[in-house]
Amino acid sequence: MSKLAITRDTKLCMSLSARPGNFGTRFQNHLYDALGLDFVYKAFASDDIEGAVRGIRALGIRGCAISMPFKEAVIPLLDAIDPSAAAIEAVNTIVNDDGRLTGYNTDYLAIVALMEQHAVPRDTAFALAGAGGMAKAVASALADHGYTRGTIVARNSATGRALADKLGYAYAAETPAGTAMLINATPVGMAGGSEAQALAFPQSAIDAATIVFDVVAIPVETPFVAAARAAGKRVITGDAVLVLQGREQFVLYTGVQPDESAVAAAAAFALAP
Amino acid sequence: MSKLAITRDTKLCMSLSARPGNFGTRFQNHLYDALGLDFVYKAFASDDIEGAVRGIRALGIRGCAISMPFKEAVIPLLDAIDPSAAAIEAVNTIVNDDGRLTGYNTDYLAIVALMEQHAVPRDTAFALAGAGGMAKAVASALADHGYTRGTIVARNSATGRALADKLGYAYAAETPAGTAMLINATPVGMAGGSEAQALAFPQSAIDAATIVFDVVAIPVETPFVAAARAAGKRVITGDAVLVLQGREQFVLYTGVQPDESAVAAAAAFALAP
Repeated sequence: MSKLAITRDTKLCMSLSARPGNFGTRFQNHLYDALGLDFVYKAFASDDIEGAVRGIRALGIRGCAISMPFKEAVIPLLDAIDPSAAAIEAVNTIVNDDGRLTGYNTDYLAIVALMEQHAVPRDTAFALAGAGGMAKAVASALADHGYTRGTIVARNSATGRALADKLGYAYAAETPAGTAMLINATPVGMAGGSEAQALAFPQSAIDAATIVFDVVAIPVETPFVAAARAAGKRVITGDAVLVLQGREQFVLYTGVQPDESAVAAAAAFALAP
Repeated sequence: MSKLAITRDTKLCMSLSARPGNFGTRFQNHLYDALGLDFVYKAFASDDIEGAVRGIRALGIRGCAISMPFKEAVIPLLDAIDPSAAAIEAVNTIVNDDGRLTGYNTDYLAIVALMEQHAVPRDTAFALAGAGGMAKAVASALADHGYTRGTIVARNSATGRALADKLGYAYAAETPAGTAMLINATPVGMAGGSEAQALAFPQSAIDAATIVFDVVAIPVETPFVAAARAAGKRVITGDAVLVLQGREQFVLYTGVQPDESAVAAAAAFALAP
């Protein structure tokens, strides 16, 4: 659809971040076009979350993705918090229903969907690296959906223990021997980070695992993912989270369930270099 | 340009109104496309000017057209007022330069441009019907550019006299005999209004005039314009104001001077039924 089709009635969705990427803009606009929806999407950089939310209300912006560093700060500015965001205390999506703003966490929803998609048994023992926002989303999604055998592995023992205690998981400084599923929810392996070349889990843990899941999406092929592939493990990569959480946002904003081929085409477009 | 070309770097311009039309959205997006500019434009309805301006600041929205009923109320929310808006005390355009918001009035600028385009002599005696926001813009533009022989013709004698006194014009309840230029800046003749079928000036005044100018743009062919055409007068129609003020907004937002063929094509697109 051309920009020339935009009218006063076209619904705007957006994202807010200190340093926005282009994935959401490209992914959502591609889906809008493919499904012929009168929506347009654009990422915004901001350092003023309060002013931005005032703007969302005043302009009737339909939906807004929330990224770093606003996922917690946005909560008191909203009217309701969906269970997907309440337990984690982190919102990554706002839906504006005629002025009533509800906060969701579609990372949480994406993790749930991925575990179902990959039919990961509920009794799988897992280790989760990290204790930040994304780690909380993963841990809460797993805890709420019956995955009881978890260990939080975090360098910061205070936040790691707090997360583990809250959800009834163990805490450990090192990955327990024989853990079947390894999940990285730290920035280790992320392009541009200080540990871009590092492995999120030791090689010995990878060798002992059955399934390896890295939430890092840039690049998709992190050292952790590469090592897991080389060892012949089942691998879930971060782009799957990115795409699934974006799909959930699309459904929340538009009310339309896109078919999988439309999602795949939008993902390919949005992830193309 | 496709919506798929929108990125985090694309600049958003917008309009704010209680009841927005589609002219601005279609006109500006057509020009952006024709000139290959990484901009996108959308009209918003709002009843919260303060929240909207907070949003403009927080999101770094590059420019915003201001319509009814916010043209005066927006002034205290801005950082600077351009002379085009200061005299009228009405802003119809905000330009956001890295967080500094300046208010302009491009109706004023359009009137100045139209008088030059039509080479209307400075000593032309004119009568201006109206004393509202648009009448103020017209009267101030004429006064500031050397048109000294004016009469304000307004039903509300208090506001009519106040406008006349401020600018050194006469006030009259009826159009003075032998006035050369008649300008309608009232809603008389506007589609959907209570006086859509009425003449803005009496037939006798039209017959006596040389040039007739109606700022009403919807429809372009008002009863006043039709009567003037029938009487063989020179006519300036409201769509010229609409297009020229939009052109001025485009220049303020983008810094680019569009050539006349691009403006004409955008106007034709935006005004098409």
